Amino acid sequence: MELAIIGLGRMGGNMARRLVRSGVRVVGWNRSQDVVRELAAEGMVAAESLEALPALLKAPRLVWVMLPAGEVTEQTLQQLSTILSPGDLIVDGGNANYKDSQRRGTWLEQQGFLFADVGVSGGVWGLQNGYGLMAGGSPEARMRLEPFLKLLAPAPDKGWVWAGPVGAGHFAKMVHNGIEYGMMQALAEGLAIIRKKEEFGTNLAELTEAWRYGTVIRSWLLDLTAAALAEDQDLKDIAPMVADSGEGRWTVMEAVELGVAAPVITEALYARFNSQDQEGYAYKLLAMMRKGFGGHAVQKVEG
Amino acid sequence: MELAIIGLGRMGGNMARRLVRSGVRVVGWNRSQDVVRELAAEGMVAAESLEALPALLKAPRLVWVMLPAGEVTEQTLQQLSTILSPGDLIVDGGNANYKDSQRRGTWLEQQGFLFADVGVSGGVWGLQNGYGLMAGGSPEARMRLEPFLKLLAPAPDKGWVWAGPVGAGHFAKMVHNGIEYGMMQALAEGLAIIRKKEEFGTNLAELTEAWRYGTVIRSWLLDLTAAALAEDQDLKDIAPMVADSGEGRWTVMEAVELGVAAPVITEALYARFNSQDQEGYAYKLLAMMRKGFGGHAVQKVEG
Amino acid sequence: MELAIIGLGRMGGNMARRLVRSGVRVVGWNRSQDVVRELAAEGMVAAESLEALPALLKAPRLVWVMLPAGEVTEQTLQQLSTILSPGDLIVDGGNANYKDSQRRGTWLEQQGFLFADVGVSGGVWGLQNGYGLMAGGSPEARMRLEPFLKLLAPAPDKGWVWAGPVGAGHFAKMVHNGIEYGMMQALAEGLAIIRKKEEFGTNLAELTEAWRYGTVIRSWLLDLTAAALAEDQDLKDIAPMVADSGEGRWTVMEAVELGVAAPVITEALYARFNSQDQEGYAYKLLAMMRKGFGGHAVQKVEG
Amino acid sequence: MELAIIGLGRMGGNMARRLVRSGVRVVGWNRSQDVVRELAAEGMVAAESLEALPALLKAPRLVWVMLPAGEVTEQTLQQLSTILSPGDLIVDGGNANYKDSQRRGTWLEQQGFLFADVGVSGGVWGLQNGYGLMAGGSPEARMRLEPFLKLLAPAPDKGWVWAGPVGAGHFAKMVHNGIEYGMMQALAEGLAIIRKKEEFGTNLAELTEAWRYGTVIRSWLLDLTAAALAEDQDLKDIAPMVADSGEGRWTVMEAVELGVAAPVITEALYARFNSQDQEGYAYKLLAMMRKGFGGHAVQKVEG
Repeated sequence: MELAIIGLGRMGGNMARRLVRSGVRVVGWNRSQDVVRELAAEGMVAAESLEALPALLKAPRLVWVMLPAGEVTEQTLQQLSTILSPGDLIVDGGNANYKDSQRRGTWLEQQGFLFADVGVSGGVWGLQNGYGLMAGGSPEARMRLEPFLKLLAPAPDKGWVWAGPVGAGHFAKMVHNGIEYGMMQALAEGLAIIRKKEEFGTNLAELTEAWRYGTVIRSWLLDLTAAALAEDQDLKDIAPMVADSGEGRWTVMEAVELGVAAPVITEALYARFNSQDQEGYAYKLLAMMRKGFGGHAVQKVEG
Repeated sequence: MELAIIGLGRMGGNMARRLVRSGVRVVGWNRSQDVVRELAAEGMVAAESLEALPALLKAPRLVWVMLPAGEVTEQTLQQLSTILSPGDLIVDGGNANYKDSQRRGTWLEQQGFLFADVGVSGGVWGLQNGYGLMAGGSPEARMRLEPFLKLLAPAPDKGWVWAGPVGAGHFAKMVHNGIEYGMMQALAEGLAIIRKKEEFGTNLAELTEAWRYGTVIRSWLLDLTAAALAEDQDLKDIAPMVADSGEGRWTVMEAVELGVAAPVITEALYARFNSQDQEGYAYKLLAMMRKGFGGHAVQKVEG
Repeated sequence: MELAIIGLGRMGGNMARRLVRSGVRVVGWNRSQDVVRELAAEGMVAAESLEALPALLKAPRLVWVMLPAGEVTEQTLQQLSTILSPGDLIVDGGNANYKDSQRRGTWLEQQGFLFADVGVSGGVWGLQNGYGLMAGGSPEARMRLEPFLKLLAPAPDKGWVWAGPVGAGHFAKMVHNGIEYGMMQALAEGLAIIRKKEEFGTNLAELTEAWRYGTVIRSWLLDLTAAALAEDQDLKDIAPMVADSGEGRWTVMEAVELGVAAPVITEALYARFNSQDQEGYAYKLLAMMRKGFGGHAVQKVEG
Repeated sequence: MELAIIGLGRMGGNMARRLVRSGVRVVGWNRSQDVVRELAAEGMVAAESLEALPALLKAPRLVWVMLPAGEVTEQTLQQLSTILSPGDLIVDGGNANYKDSQRRGTWLEQQGFLFADVGVSGGVWGLQNGYGLMAGGSPEARMRLEPFLKLLAPAPDKGWVWAGPVGAGHFAKMVHNGIEYGMMQALAEGLAIIRKKEEFGTNLAELTEAWRYGTVIRSWLLDLTAAALAEDQDLKDIAPMVADSGEGRWTVMEAVELGVAAPVITEALYARFNSQDQEGYAYKLLAMMRKGFGGHAVQKVEG
């Protein structure tokens, strides 16, 4: 078994490592060479350039791209289409929008390539626990890809799914992340309520640690929350600002396009928007309206 | 026609003024005497103390209490029950929770008084435009109170309603305010979206001014918004902080008790909570969870 | 003053009528000829075909398209580009997505046409009250279009705005409709709460009629609500199903793209999705989860 | 070690069983005697009546009440206060509102009893997996109760927490359930989106089974969901109707009282309200408003 992995960052690097440890021959390339050298020392075959990569694999090849979604992935796939051969299978394991994957799949298949889109979950823990994998593509792509999915997943029969044709993998991963937003927000709200109930002085670190066992809400996100609170339940050094990657936004847009109500996923996204909002223009407007009808005092910016 | 008004603040004072101008004999009392003197100069009969008030009116009396909801109103109603006579009609025109009004109505009626609860809308504009009035009480209370409602309202046949038995007036006013929250937030969100769409550079003052005529969203709140934006559409001196009075919260609690979904009113209330939140604990938790599973960088508080 | 109007449906027909009554020479065309004949009898100049239209106007022409957004508008604009002359001003007054308008504007301007996008509000009441108009386009387009906006609007200085470059008109109209969704939902929720509070038996027709005057929530939507409830406050013949046109969805997608939290507008949209949902799959899932952890009985579909 | 359990239903019965199996002497009473006989056969000591119970335990006694929240619990606690002795510890393990527990705690402690409130999670799976337990009460109550919590929990050092003084246990359990609502809804929304994306034909049973491993959203609720979908992913026999117990409502009311925004938990609750709504009055109102301003057709109820 052999494949190439392009992009050896936090995700791709550990995936390469996990496959090497499983006995797979992994050819790896990365823009920055430090991580290439590091992985080469662990048994990965280092490609000196993208162009050098095809010669290091037997056809039909399997090339797994693990790069940031967007321009970088787009350009790399275009470049691959010029150096790989018809019959090769190109996999995008990044966080692409599924519509991009559908477009790319069509375009690559027109040129004789196979294409599969794979959503990969698991973060920094995947090396040890295995990755959650959601794949989309043709039956032929599936046949070629399955053995690798079984090694990357927590177990050969666990944690991977063929979700449908090209696009279905990234679509499933997108929704996975939408659900993740909702679950995270549910936990955050609950804990914020308990914290605000000061009369009880509940120790949130102990509470979340206890909730990890026997309760209905036990979950990996709760495990992580308990671990974070065990260090400092006041989180006093942490800025109240939550970034959002694309998938949460895409999930909401998709819900809107499909006409499916998704209030919880959407409110979880909006909570992040609120955390990112420096100006508070909507709040200012509300304050002015209140002043307008009720003569309510408006707080002025200090300065 | 005569009545007493207790509490001559921003609302009560102007109501007294409006009634005096309509030819009603208004006996007024207020803790601070400045406003009493001012209104006396305009034709109001000043009561020197609460105890002096009954002697200034012919029985059966009509005493309209216009005080802040809560303790002040509670104590004043209790005190009135000791100095007024059975058959007198006591009106609470403040923003009491309707459950308090129901309790007070029962208790006052057991002592032989009539009681009505009246929600009063219109804010600082009521003197000029007339007030929106929602009343609750018995048919007998209605018969006694109607002539005054007709004078306080924008017109004798406009802007007042008998909403039902005791409690129904404050209940209707509570929901009115809940709707107000939702409408305000709808406007604020829409304008925040347009402001963020910087490429269009839309002039929000001109836009809202235009929206006041011919559109589906024309409304008094829009009128006020346009007036505020005409002064400074950047609202740069306004702090992004919106207070909430009790009615929004009560409306949501009532929706929950009744099992009626009220997402818009609730989200409007939560937007205000967000504007009041100094700590952002929920956001901090989310940031920590993201770090936990994805190794995402967490922004540290500066300093 | 003269212009052509293409599309004489519920909106376009009344706009033609309003302009004719103002002394404008209106050339009209419509696929179905009935309305053309009707308007011709009122003074409109009837075009026998789209191709016949340019000859009926002096260059530089102003042609206002008032057709359903989407394919019909797209094809008509393309056809107009083949029969009109450079320098003519084409106006899209339909409910196009602003991104389509931007694309069309670029394309038409490349061919030497002027283009403006105008969002038109006011519905069936516009003939009588005037329309709310939000326009986007170049300063030159503005100079040519303004005289007509002033006639269509409720008054020459009221109810129309130049919102910015091409796209800004439909963008502003889109957000207007988003705000409309939020305001409608706020009213609907409030009234549903009062209705569910059966102990008060509040007459919703009387209540909404009263709210129209002196209150903070007085608005045109409230006027319409009161009128509907005056006929039958139980709405017993009305199916609980609310359609949604594109603008609500687009507003939410735009909010998500811009990173602006718009919970109220979004929840108002989701309420409509819920009203359209025949299957209730999400509810079924919740019922099954409850059964899974709590042994709670699940209600079976009858039949 | 010995205690009495009052109420041997789905929860109490299995808790008695788990304790008996751990070697605890359990005295049990239940209104219906069938389950008493069944448990007696497994080693529980059966009390013939509530009055007979004190004599079966050595003072100071520990009596754990496991009854439906509300009237039944209230009356039983009052009755216990007449037959138990000062120094006995009374535990309410039902789903009481924490404010009731605070009131009862005060009242029972005034009479010399100890009182603790314990929220119990785990449902029908607790017998096998152990229960999640959140307790509130004085340090003395804690000392007496801890050994039993350690046996009921999944492990002596896992799954139980002393959350604070009386009330804190039920408060923590209430919020736990609120979080549960949010997580369930996040899952339900995500799956509803994928189901509506018919072009992918994703097998939801396979997908959720795969998500159980290696993903960020792995959780017990996902395990249950996968199990339910494995049987029938169309859920065609399930009515789209989700009941709500008190805790979700209380959590939202508490959030509102505390001024903490809880959009996700609240929207999850409202989704259930929507599922329970037979009339759709708010939707009817929206349909009428649309008709009012746009002449949009309103769908009539068939019949």
